Amino acid sequence: MKALRRYLPILDWGRSYDRGALANDMIAAVIVTIMLIPQSLAYALLAGLPAEAGIYASIAPILLYAVFGTSRALAVGPVAVVSLLTASAVGQVAEQGTAGYAIAALTLAALSGGFLVLLGVLRLGFLANFLSHPVIAGFITASGILIATSQLKHILGISAQGHTLPEMLGSVLAHLGEVNWATVAIGASATAFLFWVRRGLKHFLRHLGLSPFLADLLTKAGPVAAVVATTLAVWGFGLAGHGVAIVGEIPQGLPPLTMPSFEPDLLGALFMPAILISVIGFVESISIAQTLAARKRQRVDPDQELIGLGVANLGAAFTGGYPVTGGFARSVVNFDAGAETPAAGAFTALGLLMASLFLTPLVYYLPKATLAATIIVAVLSLVDFSILKKTWTYSRADFTAVAATILLTLLAGVEMGVASGVAISVLLHLYKTSRPHVAEVGLVPGTQHFRNINRHEVETDPTLLTLRVDESLYFVNARFLEDLVQERVTEGGAIEHVVLMFSAVNEVDFSALESLEAINRRLKDMGVGLHMSEVKGPVMDRLKTSRFLDELNGEVFLSQYDAWRKLGLPAAGRSHRPST
Amino acid sequence: MKALRRYLPILDWGRSYDRGALANDMIAAVIVTIMLIPQSLAYALLAGLPAEAGIYASIAPILLYAVFGTSRALAVGPVAVVSLLTASAVGQVAEQGTAGYAIAALTLAALSGGFLVLLGVLRLGFLANFLSHPVIAGFITASGILIATSQLKHILGISAQGHTLPEMLGSVLAHLGEVNWATVAIGASATAFLFWVRRGLKHFLRHLGLSPFLADLLTKAGPVAAVVATTLAVWGFGLAGHGVAIVGEIPQGLPPLTMPSFEPDLLGALFMPAILISVIGFVESISIAQTLAARKRQRVDPDQELIGLGVANLGAAFTGGYPVTGGFARSVVNFDAGAETPAAGAFTALGLLMASLFLTPLVYYLPKATLAATIIVAVLSLVDFSILKKTWTYSRADFTAVAATILLTLLAGVEMGVASGVAISVLLHLYKTSRPHVAEVGLVPGTQHFRNINRHEVETDPTLLTLRVDESLYFVNARFLEDLVQERVTEGGAIEHVVLMFSAVNEVDFSALESLEAINRRLKDMGVGLHMSEVKGPVMDRLKTSRFLDELNGEVFLSQYDAWRKLGLPAAGRSHRPST
Repeated sequence: MKALRRYLPILDWGRSYDRGALANDMIAAVIVTIMLIPQSLAYALLAGLPAEAGIYASIAPILLYAVFGTSRALAVGPVAVVSLLTASAVGQVAEQGTAGYAIAALTLAALSGGFLVLLGVLRLGFLANFLSHPVIAGFITASGILIATSQLKHILGISAQGHTLPEMLGSVLAHLGEVNWATVAIGASATAFLFWVRRGLKHFLRHLGLSPFLADLLTKAGPVAAVVATTLAVWGFGLAGHGVAIVGEIPQGLPPLTMPSFEPDLLGALFMPAILISVIGFVESISIAQTLAARKRQRVDPDQELIGLGVANLGAAFTGGYPVTGGFARSVVNFDAGAETPAAGAFTALGLLMASLFLTPLVYYLPKATLAATIIVAVLSLVDFSILKKTWTYSRADFTAVAATILLTLLAGVEMGVASGVAISVLLHLYKTSRPHVAEVGLVPGTQHFRNINRHEVETDPTLLTLRVDESLYFVNARFLEDLVQERVTEGGAIEHVVLMFSAVNEVDFSALESLEAINRRLKDMGVGLHMSEVKGPVMDRLKTSRFLDELNGEVFLSQYDAWRKLGLPAAGRSHRPST
Repeated sequence: MKALRRYLPILDWGRSYDRGALANDMIAAVIVTIMLIPQSLAYALLAGLPAEAGIYASIAPILLYAVFGTSRALAVGPVAVVSLLTASAVGQVAEQGTAGYAIAALTLAALSGGFLVLLGVLRLGFLANFLSHPVIAGFITASGILIATSQLKHILGISAQGHTLPEMLGSVLAHLGEVNWATVAIGASATAFLFWVRRGLKHFLRHLGLSPFLADLLTKAGPVAAVVATTLAVWGFGLAGHGVAIVGEIPQGLPPLTMPSFEPDLLGALFMPAILISVIGFVESISIAQTLAARKRQRVDPDQELIGLGVANLGAAFTGGYPVTGGFARSVVNFDAGAETPAAGAFTALGLLMASLFLTPLVYYLPKATLAATIIVAVLSLVDFSILKKTWTYSRADFTAVAATILLTLLAGVEMGVASGVAISVLLHLYKTSRPHVAEVGLVPGTQHFRNINRHEVETDPTLLTLRVDESLYFVNARFLEDLVQERVTEGGAIEHVVLMFSAVNEVDFSALESLEAINRRLKDMGVGLHMSEVKGPVMDRLKTSRFLDELNGEVFLSQYDAWRKLGLPAAGRSHRPST
């Protein structure tokens, strides 16, 4: 039963579901549904799919996540970044607008879902940590710029293409002669209106005396107002005849049952993009889920989240959708609107189902420029360069990773950008550990505590060289310590004992063990003792399985102070070293 | 002048070169030359090149290394593993026996040389550390098996091919019907003879009363004896007419001036193999150089070694050779024979030059089976599976890396094998750091020293939770600590203060800083103080650039003992915790 409840969190929150929770969930669902209708249509277009795919991708996935997910507030569905990644991946294997394109999108969702479920069952959620916070922040910012740029063509009513910023801008410039002014009028005013809604409407409505709740609700309905107004304008003035691109016919009905392709070539081509989409989607989703859960002191289980998102993606694959994940905007709206349980998601799915059954004829004349405006306004709020400044002050390595991620995402595309971000973070980390900080330490007078002789006022002993190694010892830096000890001992004449203070050594791998053996042999030849202090339990356990401790030309001390008392000169011989 | 001496070590040892050194160097050169003639021919065949390429690859490179290298005993030239890697890389872009094949080998040497020089000038020698000792050991062992297997066809007189063990064995089995028995007779007896020379001859000669020096010299001449005997046999019995493959005509003269190709396609195809060959060659070479230098208390400068090897490879590229590196067998022989300076190498080059001028007609009838026997006997001494046992006892992670390297080298080829070895080592290291060891610590009675409560008898305080974090905090494990602290604090009721003991934290990157901020915020909300102790200088410097220390809901203590005295209960409230 407990195991079942781990895989089906619904059994957990379902037990205490009451009338109050129901009311809250339903109100949240209405608000989210209103917001999601234009957003879903828009993101489907961003992904290069027919508009209805966005609605379909919001129905089954939400329901499935409600059963398998652990976050109470996460709203799953199409999101901007994953839509962009989908367009980029599927665009490489099929032509937009073909049946192959839609099937490839289904296949991508299936692969990505399968991969997420696999990671979840194997409890490998920690792998997502390889995408560091700064890299994600940089990636989201760059993606926001890419997405907004990709929508320019819809606002201008021209055809343009490209997957990188220079390609897109170049293509827009090349087609600038074909601008459709009716489209520009609609697109520009919708964009301006939506920016105003986001920035000023709420304040304005509060000023008029509306209740906070109502002001908030009307603000969220802003995109719907833009949709209604521009649809009416196109219909009333017959603008479709003047070259304004419209959404057109959308099939009315339940989400269809669809089948992803299992053709090996296609699976091979989509394999890497699917992993990328899974990881990025998961990281985005789990960050949102954890932030929201922390506010209510709830817990989110990362491994179960993998399963929840995976099943949601599998659901999308079989019901005409495309890859989905937890969206920031929709989740926050859901949370703020008072959603208490995943049932709110189920009600949202119901609302969208109604929309796909009855409302699709109403959006026939909806101009694509309005959807583009919705996307632009939504994604520009993701663009935040402050991470560059923050990391610059704190750590050049983090700054390098962020800057590279942003630049490469803009200049070489999303896949290259995020992959480079991860690779650069890992390499910089390894580089840092390859040249570890090693401090010579002395006794802080009046204590049993040892600190760096260059930073603190400490007592030292000319016959005793104590090096505090500030890094785990492993193959990347094994030889470094070998060279360092050799250098220090040959340069200083009076040294009789070397103590390696291992308080910061968390691992000694086989290569490092061989280096320690070499250090021991060389010091023995030179008549210098090699000792160790403050070796931690796990490291000691490991060393005991080798012959190193038997051959050690010295002792292992529990604390550095013990080593100092046993090996050092009497107090008279010590020198006092002021901090510099 | 000092800068010049850094790049031209010859200016260093050249100043004190005297008559004694000259005599020693010349004797060593004679011995090494005798050993190198058959070896060079054999390795060229292993690389798929005409036999003379092996001689040429030993002349200019040795001379150039004598000028630019820092090791006194390293002997540079064709070696087994690099020859195998050359065959594998060049075989992918050209057909063996064509002019394109030889040019591709020159190009590979040029690329590899250029890359090594670049690394040396940029002082990036530490990059070679990514190839850990166990991975190299595994790779060399597996390569030895591959190389020996690849020579079976020459011993059997059949044609066979393949780059992996199953391919090679399959191909040999498929052609088993074509065995040439005259070749087998020569190959098998040469192999048996050479094994006996290696195992028993020296002992036998000493037993006969020869001086150790002479016994040793005759043992080293064993391969030459095999060459002479089998060449005479083929010539005398006219075995070439019975299908015994012979070396045939070798151009007589100085090494030719050659030009590698700079065609972009070829450079692109050889780029990755060149990097691999450079790194493997460098690592093999530097290990040998350092081992030999340590015996005489000399120093080897890894960055200058890169330049020395790089220039040697460039030399090979322009004089009809192929990629070279410092060879184990030849360097040890050189060292044991008493070589004192790189001049020994120069004399060896002179000896080989004589050979290429005057001796090549003599090896016309030399059977390839004899060369194959030389290779087999040489490389089987590299095969050593003890690394598997050693790493199994010491660390499963290292064992996994070795086992994967061996298996993948045998089953998927050398390039895949070594690349996987590096990737697996890095991933396993990152995996280990992603789930750090965190110990709850208490005071060792009568000291100021704190240790793990589960391993030592210590005093603890129910209101004070002290966690010693045994790992640098960075993006891969940032969230781990967040979850852990949350869990520990919510489960234990009486905790008023949490102290993070940072003695083993060597880095806090930006992601980890954000996690620490999150921990601080949450503990503040719960009314629990967050403190830190024993934060190291470099970590503290970094933290001071952020606002974390201002917002910290507690203090930073110099030592854990200070924190204990300030925050803990009076002694009466402490509990004594025996070690378990």
